[in-house]
Amino acid sequence: MKNNMLKACPLLITLFVFCQDLLAQSRPTWIWYPGDFEIWLSNNMQNRRTERNTFYPVFWKYDSHYPLIDFHKDFDLTTAEAVKIYTEGAYNVKIDGRAIEGVPQQITVPAGHHRINIKVFNQANVPAVYVEGKTIVSDSSWLVTFEDKEWIDETGKASDVSATKWLNAGSWNFHHSQTLPSACKLPVRPQYAVSTNKSNSGTLVDFGKETFGFIRLHGVQGTGNVTLYYGESKEEALHAKSAETYDVFSSRQSSKTDSLLPSSKAFRYVNIVTSGDVKVDSISMLYEYAGLKERGQFRCSDEEVNRIYDISKYTFELNTREFFIDGIKRDRWVWSGDAYQSYLMNYYLYFDNATVSRTILALRGKDPVTSHINTIMDYTFYWFLSIYDYYLYTGDQSFIKQFYPRMQTMMEYCLGRRNKEGLMQGLSGDWVFIDWADGLSKKGAVSFEQLLLCRSLETMGLCADLVGDKSDAAKYNQYAATLKKQLFELYWNQQQQALVHSRVDGQQTANVTRYANMFAIFYDYFNAAQKNAVKQSVLLNDSIQKITTPYMRFYELEALCAMGEQDYVLKEMKDYWGGMLKLGATSFWEVYNPAETGVQHYAMYGRAFGRSLCHAWGASPLYLLGKYYLGVKPTSAGYNTYTVQPALGGLQWMEGKVPTPNGDIVLYCSTKEMKITTAAGTGLLRFRSKIKPVCKTGTLVNKGEDWYEMAMRAATSYVVNYQAPKPETHAKTR
Amino acid sequence: MKNNMLKACPLLITLFVFCQDLLAQSRPTWIWYPGDFEIWLSNNMQNRRTERNTFYPVFWKYDSHYPLIDFHKDFDLTTAEAVKIYTEGAYNVKIDGRAIEGVPQQITVPAGHHRINIKVFNQANVPAVYVEGKTIVSDSSWLVTFEDKEWIDETGKASDVSATKWLNAGSWNFHHSQTLPSACKLPVRPQYAVSTNKSNSGTLVDFGKETFGFIRLHGVQGTGNVTLYYGESKEEALHAKSAETYDVFSSRQSSKTDSLLPSSKAFRYVNIVTSGDVKVDSISMLYEYAGLKERGQFRCSDEEVNRIYDISKYTFELNTREFFIDGIKRDRWVWSGDAYQSYLMNYYLYFDNATVSRTILALRGKDPVTSHINTIMDYTFYWFLSIYDYYLYTGDQSFIKQFYPRMQTMMEYCLGRRNKEGLMQGLSGDWVFIDWADGLSKKGAVSFEQLLLCRSLETMGLCADLVGDKSDAAKYNQYAATLKKQLFELYWNQQQQALVHSRVDGQQTANVTRYANMFAIFYDYFNAAQKNAVKQSVLLNDSIQKITTPYMRFYELEALCAMGEQDYVLKEMKDYWGGMLKLGATSFWEVYNPAETGVQHYAMYGRAFGRSLCHAWGASPLYLLGKYYLGVKPTSAGYNTYTVQPALGGLQWMEGKVPTPNGDIVLYCSTKEMKITTAAGTGLLRFRSKIKPVCKTGTLVNKGEDWYEMAMRAATSYVVNYQAPKPETHAKTR
Repeated sequence: MKNNMLKACPLLITLFVFCQDLLAQSRPTWIWYPGDFEIWLSNNMQNRRTERNTFYPVFWKYDSHYPLIDFHKDFDLTTAEAVKIYTEGAYNVKIDGRAIEGVPQQITVPAGHHRINIKVFNQANVPAVYVEGKTIVSDSSWLVTFEDKEWIDETGKASDVSATKWLNAGSWNFHHSQTLPSACKLPVRPQYAVSTNKSNSGTLVDFGKETFGFIRLHGVQGTGNVTLYYGESKEEALHAKSAETYDVFSSRQSSKTDSLLPSSKAFRYVNIVTSGDVKVDSISMLYEYAGLKERGQFRCSDEEVNRIYDISKYTFELNTREFFIDGIKRDRWVWSGDAYQSYLMNYYLYFDNATVSRTILALRGKDPVTSHINTIMDYTFYWFLSIYDYYLYTGDQSFIKQFYPRMQTMMEYCLGRRNKEGLMQGLSGDWVFIDWADGLSKKGAVSFEQLLLCRSLETMGLCADLVGDKSDAAKYNQYAATLKKQLFELYWNQQQQALVHSRVDGQQTANVTRYANMFAIFYDYFNAAQKNAVKQSVLLNDSIQKITTPYMRFYELEALCAMGEQDYVLKEMKDYWGGMLKLGATSFWEVYNPAETGVQHYAMYGRAFGRSLCHAWGASPLYLLGKYYLGVKPTSAGYNTYTVQPALGGLQWMEGKVPTPNGDIVLYCSTKEMKITTAAGTGLLRFRSKIKPVCKTGTLVNKGEDWYEMAMRAATSYVVNYQAPKPETHAKTR
Repeated sequence: MKNNMLKACPLLITLFVFCQDLLAQSRPTWIWYPGDFEIWLSNNMQNRRTERNTFYPVFWKYDSHYPLIDFHKDFDLTTAEAVKIYTEGAYNVKIDGRAIEGVPQQITVPAGHHRINIKVFNQANVPAVYVEGKTIVSDSSWLVTFEDKEWIDETGKASDVSATKWLNAGSWNFHHSQTLPSACKLPVRPQYAVSTNKSNSGTLVDFGKETFGFIRLHGVQGTGNVTLYYGESKEEALHAKSAETYDVFSSRQSSKTDSLLPSSKAFRYVNIVTSGDVKVDSISMLYEYAGLKERGQFRCSDEEVNRIYDISKYTFELNTREFFIDGIKRDRWVWSGDAYQSYLMNYYLYFDNATVSRTILALRGKDPVTSHINTIMDYTFYWFLSIYDYYLYTGDQSFIKQFYPRMQTMMEYCLGRRNKEGLMQGLSGDWVFIDWADGLSKKGAVSFEQLLLCRSLETMGLCADLVGDKSDAAKYNQYAATLKKQLFELYWNQQQQALVHSRVDGQQTANVTRYANMFAIFYDYFNAAQKNAVKQSVLLNDSIQKITTPYMRFYELEALCAMGEQDYVLKEMKDYWGGMLKLGATSFWEVYNPAETGVQHYAMYGRAFGRSLCHAWGASPLYLLGKYYLGVKPTSAGYNTYTVQPALGGLQWMEGKVPTPNGDIVLYCSTKEMKITTAAGTGLLRFRSKIKPVCKTGTLVNKGEDWYEMAMRAATSYVVNYQAPKPETHAKTR
């Protein structure tokens, strides 16, 4: 990815915005100050974590919505129009600056040019407005501010409000006047147990696979407590003293009744223990889900890989909720590093922009910046990178225009924390996370953090350009260039042929880890010689500490794929994700170490069942299979241009879909034939063939050796006959 | 007032803190993050403004409380202790970092050294905690933060929280577990009408004087609306189309019932108009008040002055509510310029620190600073000055320590808005208010604003010193010195013998106004020659535009008093405030122009009844009589030292009390005798006498001419026989 890939097609964007406007005009929706509902909702969502029945909120700053918001829009009416007004909060309405007496629920706007202002206060929930007329409707074209600064002096002169900053209103999917944003709830559907058995202490119910939702008790009678111990594993549910989560329901029922528990939990197993004379007939559950449409698809000749893809999808579905969360059992929080991977998976499955932008906004919160995002230095940088990717995949420039100021203040916070050498080093209160890995040093200035900062600065340069701030763009690009130079001067070790892990007290350490080296590959920071050297000296070198989290496996395998090692990666995928399946996993885990056995797999943080068995970062095959096997990726903003470079990686055939902002790219690929139906934008097919390939509808160009390219028009089908090379064996040499 | 006056007595403060601690230990109180309840309450309070029955909130940014707060304190127990826990919000409790399962309402803390943490989430209201044990009680010694940054890494290692900022908890008067801060309400008592008469449109009820509260309808029956038009004047209540406020009560009562209206209003008159067949027997009201104890007193030989003092007291009582507000009818908002004067009056009447600090915190709100306080440049500066005064009068150093960071960011905002010459000039979105005065220029850089900035910078220097930030102190003192020099270089006009009003495009204007000149007098910025020149060329010069608001009359009269013109000022006071009394005022007004007649007195902002007839700034005689007639003022923080310099100003005698942090100073003074009982601290009596004065218990020192001084010990009574000089006549020469 180079910056010039991100130059958007202005026509396409104009057209897109125009279509959005048309759509918006006909359909009112609840609107608010952008970012505010997202913050409010994430506070509520993250509050739902409990540990051993104890409220367990985050340890960073929760921000709030602005409690007082002014909404306005100008309209040109040919005839007078009756308009209904709904709000969440106390409000007033003005037409052309003049307040309407009382609390009007319906107003009539006369013909002509008029401005409607609605000012709403709400401390508990987000001030929101829903306006429903024939042509006057609330949508994101309304402008909002938290300080209108509209005063009148003693002479009646109106104030100069030219400094007031107006943003476009935020919205989501609250399209009916009665679906209040403050009542936001995900949909649910009933699910039933697959088995129920007596346990030592009570009754053990198995729902057959990892799931999430609300337990419903059926036929409760008697006086006493019903305690439900939840388990992602059977062992956890049966271990009353160590189960991470449980609920207690107090009953005083003289006749049988059903009760729905108010708090959602993650589990496969539930052990029901009762006290007193209370009895429970049975339990079922309401499965809670986001209900996003799956647009991406993948199927291939290897059934194990298909199963990995399906379980990845299910793992991702469970962790895609109001926001992209880390895992459903324990934290249920929005973590920037975890979410960053979810965004990427999302581009190959749901392509749901709203969940991405909502998560980005929730993570950022508001000024002033008082800490790194989630308190973690690397997580701040992933936040910047997520905006880079968001723009590349979706082409949504307006998001960057609205929130560039929040990027600025976040970056200024980082730049203010550099050490004497200009490097990021963990200060008191900063968490340098990198990865869960035994003995990983966080001391001094870690190369990995500098690399992420460098990429973040490049993102700032790009976004400054997009918002037309040339001086910022020059500044950040200069910072990035300087830091990139430093990265090699200060961390490259010629002898080890790698970037070392850190500098401590201004001196290079001898320690080499995978992190900076693998990121530098897919960020294209290495020259060709360095790249190949690092592949051998780090990536395929068993003496370098191995990665045991799917979190960092994601990037390790991506780096290998980016170097054409799809054959090797497919085997690794089958080993690693296949390994979890063989242990009976019904969703993918937070940590998987093949060297562990039995209940060792469940322990973490010094707790017997501390580990999450359903973690979003476990679902990365979604991304790898879409981007590096089907081989589809944007090369300029919003898939205005893109490449398709299929790689079977040893499979006999594969087929699938990759979503784009305007339609899906559909692909079938065997060792002999490729069939592609393109979406909007200009595609470039790249592949290798041992024979001269044939395509009746496109022009194939030989690019040297056995590489071929073919330009593809929008919304067109192509069939290519070719012969794939034999599976690569480079990586095997390790 | 010079900076060195503010050096506090460390022993006294230590003793004071110790006493507070003792008091706190025995008495639990609801606590919160300091400043948060104040912001939350001010949002609610300021939302109560209505105009013509329409919700009318402010036009600047409302901030929010932090929704998630961690409270903690360490205790050393000799025996185990049972502790009850009450919160406003979802919470968890930890002892020594370990969470207690569930939602404990009572815990037992074992003997020994233990830390108790309580973490509370509340979006709608302020997270608050009330802890009640034998020795473990919630009070302001608890520490609070909005980001504890307490994470545990994969090895179980606890995070470095040394960068977490802890403040002392905020509290007020919620001393019982069941008096929830979120239910905060001022007390009420019933009041009854003095007359009820038929009006053209309905029934006109007169409550006899300006008042504030909730109307109670008695014996309502029938179906229809009861509309209540409120009037500070009879004319307003009877003018349905122009009354600033009204309420509509809808009745569908088949039998007689009483109803209390939910929203408070300001009025003397209420005109009741009914529709349909609805009938109302009568109305009464619930008077709402803050209930602060009056500690200051003033009585003298002039009955008109006594009446002015009493009506000032009542005016001030009405405007002293949850906060010091501007006026009770219209805005009911917290305006920094208005509040600044209320603080000063408060020091001579209630000496209620809590209402001062609460108002200062509400005005400041939170970072980031996006506008001047109330959007007004001068109001930002008054905010700084109010902290200077607060410390001088109360000696409360902990307030400054807690909130110095908010002073810093506010000042940095100001300094970032200076023009090329380094002067404050109204930028787009800034309101340069100064005063309500016809044709007053706000163009360019106004001298008055520079003067206030200069004083604000001196305040920053002082406070930086108090918090031990030497580099800040040096920086701000340097800025102040530079600006003070500029003030004279750029604005002093030798020919006019005055500071000119403004510079426009880098050039002095010829315009001279009173504002900068009178402030420079009591800030002691002029040398003696300049001071006397300005008195003639500006203060006593009728060709300089006159001041018509009690707001600026406050400072004008203060400047004259500071120059010893008490005789002249007393006559002005009788003229001006006496003038309102002669027009039947039962409280003092926002604006009084003796040249106006009849209903002209009620109009403002182009509205027939726009003017407020009960405005806090109308009560300034409270301050002038206490500080410049009784003559009591602190000369170092918290009345550690103070002067008493009585000035009869032509009165035969006067007597009164001035409150201090530790007791009242009681004074009687006639032309022949002074009796003083002092409070804590060291006093200095200063006075003039035509004979050699006599005091049996103190040592009188002649200071040249007929000036005498006498040092006074704490809590001692003195009688001085002397002879006052004849009334001064300087000012009469005008």
